[in-house]
Amino acid sequence: RDRETATALSSRGLTVSGTIQARASHTSEPVTTAGSVDRRKTSLDVPVAILGFTGSLYRDYQEGRNLNYTLRLGASPLGNGTQFLNLLDANLTYALRPTIDQADGQLNVTFGQQLLPFGLEVPATEDLKPVINNAQFASKLGLAQRQIGVIVRGDLDPTVDYGYNYRAPLLAYALGWVNGAGPNVSDNNSAKDFVGRLAFTAPSDYSSWLRQLTLGASVYHGKQNRLIGSTFVAQGKRERVGVDFSYNHEPFGITFEAIRGEDGTVSGSANAPVYGTVKSKSHTATFFYNFGEQFVKGYRAQARFDDWWPKSYQPFVRVDRFDPNTAAQNDAVDIDTLGLNIFFAQTSKFQLNLNRTHDRARQLKYRDVLAQFQFGF
Amino acid sequence: RDRETATALSSRGLTVSGTIQARASHTSEPVTTAGSVDRRKTSLDVPVAILGFTGSLYRDYQEGRNLNYTLRLGASPLGNGTQFLNLLDANLTYALRPTIDQADGQLNVTFGQQLLPFGLEVPATEDLKPVINNAQFASKLGLAQRQIGVIVRGDLDPTVDYGYNYRAPLLAYALGWVNGAGPNVSDNNSAKDFVGRLAFTAPSDYSSWLRQLTLGASVYHGKQNRLIGSTFVAQGKRERVGVDFSYNHEPFGITFEAIRGEDGTVSGSANAPVYGTVKSKSHTATFFYNFGEQFVKGYRAQARFDDWWPKSYQPFVRVDRFDPNTAAQNDAVDIDTLGLNIFFAQTSKFQLNLNRTHDRARQLKYRDVLAQFQFGF
Amino acid sequence: RDRETATALSSRGLTVSGTIQARASHTSEPVTTAGSVDRRKTSLDVPVAILGFTGSLYRDYQEGRNLNYTLRLGASPLGNGTQFLNLLDANLTYALRPTIDQADGQLNVTFGQQLLPFGLEVPATEDLKPVINNAQFASKLGLAQRQIGVIVRGDLDPTVDYGYNYRAPLLAYALGWVNGAGPNVSDNNSAKDFVGRLAFTAPSDYSSWLRQLTLGASVYHGKQNRLIGSTFVAQGKRERVGVDFSYNHEPFGITFEAIRGEDGTVSGSANAPVYGTVKSKSHTATFFYNFGEQFVKGYRAQARFDDWWPKSYQPFVRVDRFDPNTAAQNDAVDIDTLGLNIFFAQTSKFQLNLNRTHDRARQLKYRDVLAQFQFGF
Repeated sequence: RDRETATALSSRGLTVSGTIQARASHTSEPVTTAGSVDRRKTSLDVPVAILGFTGSLYRDYQEGRNLNYTLRLGASPLGNGTQFLNLLDANLTYALRPTIDQADGQLNVTFGQQLLPFGLEVPATEDLKPVINNAQFASKLGLAQRQIGVIVRGDLDPTVDYGYNYRAPLLAYALGWVNGAGPNVSDNNSAKDFVGRLAFTAPSDYSSWLRQLTLGASVYHGKQNRLIGSTFVAQGKRERVGVDFSYNHEPFGITFEAIRGEDGTVSGSANAPVYGTVKSKSHTATFFYNFGEQFVKGYRAQARFDDWWPKSYQPFVRVDRFDPNTAAQNDAVDIDTLGLNIFFAQTSKFQLNLNRTHDRARQLKYRDVLAQFQFGF
Repeated sequence: RDRETATALSSRGLTVSGTIQARASHTSEPVTTAGSVDRRKTSLDVPVAILGFTGSLYRDYQEGRNLNYTLRLGASPLGNGTQFLNLLDANLTYALRPTIDQADGQLNVTFGQQLLPFGLEVPATEDLKPVINNAQFASKLGLAQRQIGVIVRGDLDPTVDYGYNYRAPLLAYALGWVNGAGPNVSDNNSAKDFVGRLAFTAPSDYSSWLRQLTLGASVYHGKQNRLIGSTFVAQGKRERVGVDFSYNHEPFGITFEAIRGEDGTVSGSANAPVYGTVKSKSHTATFFYNFGEQFVKGYRAQARFDDWWPKSYQPFVRVDRFDPNTAAQNDAVDIDTLGLNIFFAQTSKFQLNLNRTHDRARQLKYRDVLAQFQFGF
Repeated sequence: RDRETATALSSRGLTVSGTIQARASHTSEPVTTAGSVDRRKTSLDVPVAILGFTGSLYRDYQEGRNLNYTLRLGASPLGNGTQFLNLLDANLTYALRPTIDQADGQLNVTFGQQLLPFGLEVPATEDLKPVINNAQFASKLGLAQRQIGVIVRGDLDPTVDYGYNYRAPLLAYALGWVNGAGPNVSDNNSAKDFVGRLAFTAPSDYSSWLRQLTLGASVYHGKQNRLIGSTFVAQGKRERVGVDFSYNHEPFGITFEAIRGEDGTVSGSANAPVYGTVKSKSHTATFFYNFGEQFVKGYRAQARFDDWWPKSYQPFVRVDRFDPNTAAQNDAVDIDTLGLNIFFAQTSKFQLNLNRTHDRARQLKYRDVLAQFQFGF
């Protein structure tokens, strides 16, 4: 009876989830926007609210070749975002190979709007990102945008330690074809963009010091419309190549990514266009340290209430540099971050970030303090 | 305990549902939009994502005179839609007559924003439409728009076959009054538009060859503001009359709709307006054939897992013509579709449509290929 | 099994709720909007649809110092609202003091986007408001806008009658700091606005005639950007002071609020600005009477079906006046409302309001009839 009148039902497997951020910030460089913002140094914000609906359309009990779906909607009032809920992810994933045995390689294909499998930071959803602000390359090189397309993700030859519920594939790969025009629009040309990633993890036992040492390489290869005025002149290239390294050995961890971009440009007049290329480069490195009890699904949790959750602390340092044009002098932006994450409940954390920015193009140095609760259901 | 911490609760009966489309398309006629789209022939799209919340506010256990609600939100990034979630349906339905006995006629009244009961294609929700693109008249005559109003729907003298869970009323009717200004706005004049429908189904047993032979007629009678420049000159008429026929006899089925429209127009100057009328006509016919096992709620499903779902296949042919002005020559648009629907899970289907379009006004003939997964929860 | 495939799950405690309004209205003063609306006197509308997600992130079983969240999304197509779903509330509430014992004072802190604790009408969510249209001061003085900030709410020395599940604190207080720039934007200046409220309830038993006699005072003290053209000239003050009184003694009830506002203004030129102040005042009083059986969580409900719900009726009278500038003559607007609320199901009511408006500035007197179903889940 309770089920009928006081429970949310669905016709397929469905998990409802959400992620919300509430932030307080201070900057040493006041912000003024003509006609609306007058020398703001502090602000309280709800930067992001995301609603997710995920589940299974078809469950294959024999082989685990399941068909799953994801629908994610979000509003991001901060910055150039929007206060309205729009479509983030909408896709369908099918397991091409059986998923019953963890020791088998996996192979999934996802069709629809989704995040790109490029490096470490780009494919992380909002609830998993360690730093409040994204690495600069993610937005400045357009990689953080969701894309509509079909992406195959798989892995080979995993090391499995059933005791620790640990699974580390020797080789993980992803390759896909996407519009390249961003989310919620049809493609703006006929060229489809290619994205691929290959990651090699050192084979090791759970107890080895090599555990979770991963080396990866990613490539994005596409075309973008280039215009002079409103006349299409050419489809310039849009290349991004990245290498990444991560080593996550409790209690320490380190991640590093370096990305190079190359964008075709046109200038001059529509009748006599001049073709060019802008090369950009970027890198970001993060070092973190964990302490405090962590939640491990295991015997420790057995005698506890269901809302027992140990606090854990994660101080970190990040350096992040983005150079938008390697041919130009003095245009790189450095952002160094000193941060602390406090995990205090299952889906909640408190984040404190101190950012020091050196913006050479605008000849500015400033500091930001960001304090944020991220919580969800 | 699981109920408390890991189940979505509600204070009234609630079913959460969703419908998502992920599509790949190819056209023989490249699309160019000044300043943004450069000769697109192919695109990957998420045309529609809909989120629905339905349930019961008040359940009458004695007579089944229930009070139900519907809230549906959707984003439709493709075409002239929007990437933001907006309000589709929001209404309240009350059963004026008891619904306990299926052999009784039913009578419901629905108040709020809803689909119009006009013909066959217009009142179908997105998850039930057989063809990827709607029939032309639905959008070109403005009938596919949700309207805000009050609509009474009922039926009389149903033939009921309890064994097959089959119910076919001899006469079904609907009549309502709506703003006529479309969804999510107040009315734009004081005139309320009338919509009515009458459908006659041949009385027959479940086994009769006349089963599911239905003849219907629909009428929409309203007013629209007519302006010259920004001056209101008159409220022109807005009439649509439709007849429809459907015969659904396994494994074959056929549906046919013919619609005529009449719209008052004004031209000339605001001081000396010239009144006129534009008449349009349209028809669409669909022939389909089903094969493969179909899911019937019955003994076959009893020994199966809950996710057993037989595949079924539905090839179809549709012809669709819209003539926007019967007084003008060479302005009709023909769209012929050869299609295949594959139902592979309870709420999911794969759709393949080949469209051949003959647009006389633009003097174009082109072909489109659309492949789409439609899935939901 | 049902739980797995046909129930909406979540990873934290979650209650999904919604509020929808469907309205019919008639006005004696036709509405014309250049180019779109032609002398409208009647309209059918879905003024508001709200979707809410609330729950607990962390439940403290020992002391009840819980951590709760609220996410509310809404579309309000009517008037200057929007048809798109946007973010209404997004916040996190922590109980600073134990909540196990009802006889203890409580103290909660809420961080994020939320309603202001100012008077009686402003902090009421849409499903709790007695009158269809809000009191004028709520929107005209900007108090009905959600704000982003941190607000502490608490109470002291409550009178508790466990038998009737009745709790009335002697003193309730709230104080907070908010951006003052409204919802879904960063602050537009560095000044944070202060809001505070103090309410005194007569200490009394459940049976006393003094029960639910409350006197309150609220203050809002902030800054707003003042511009001449697009040049920032000053940050003018933005003050609101309110007193309120409510006495809710079955079957009668009365509420009264009086609010004064003071806004800094600038005029003249940007080089020689002239500073001024506009003072406004407003009051609203509502008298209501309840009859019919009311639902009380108690023995009466025990032998009933779970959807048994007694009807109750609430006729009321409201007078509402807003004077936008006390220095100007003949600019006050009076709205008198005669209304009836019929509560016919747990989360649903029917509302009928007759409004008589005297708009002195526009020299208009007109009457409106509004009939509305408000329902939710």
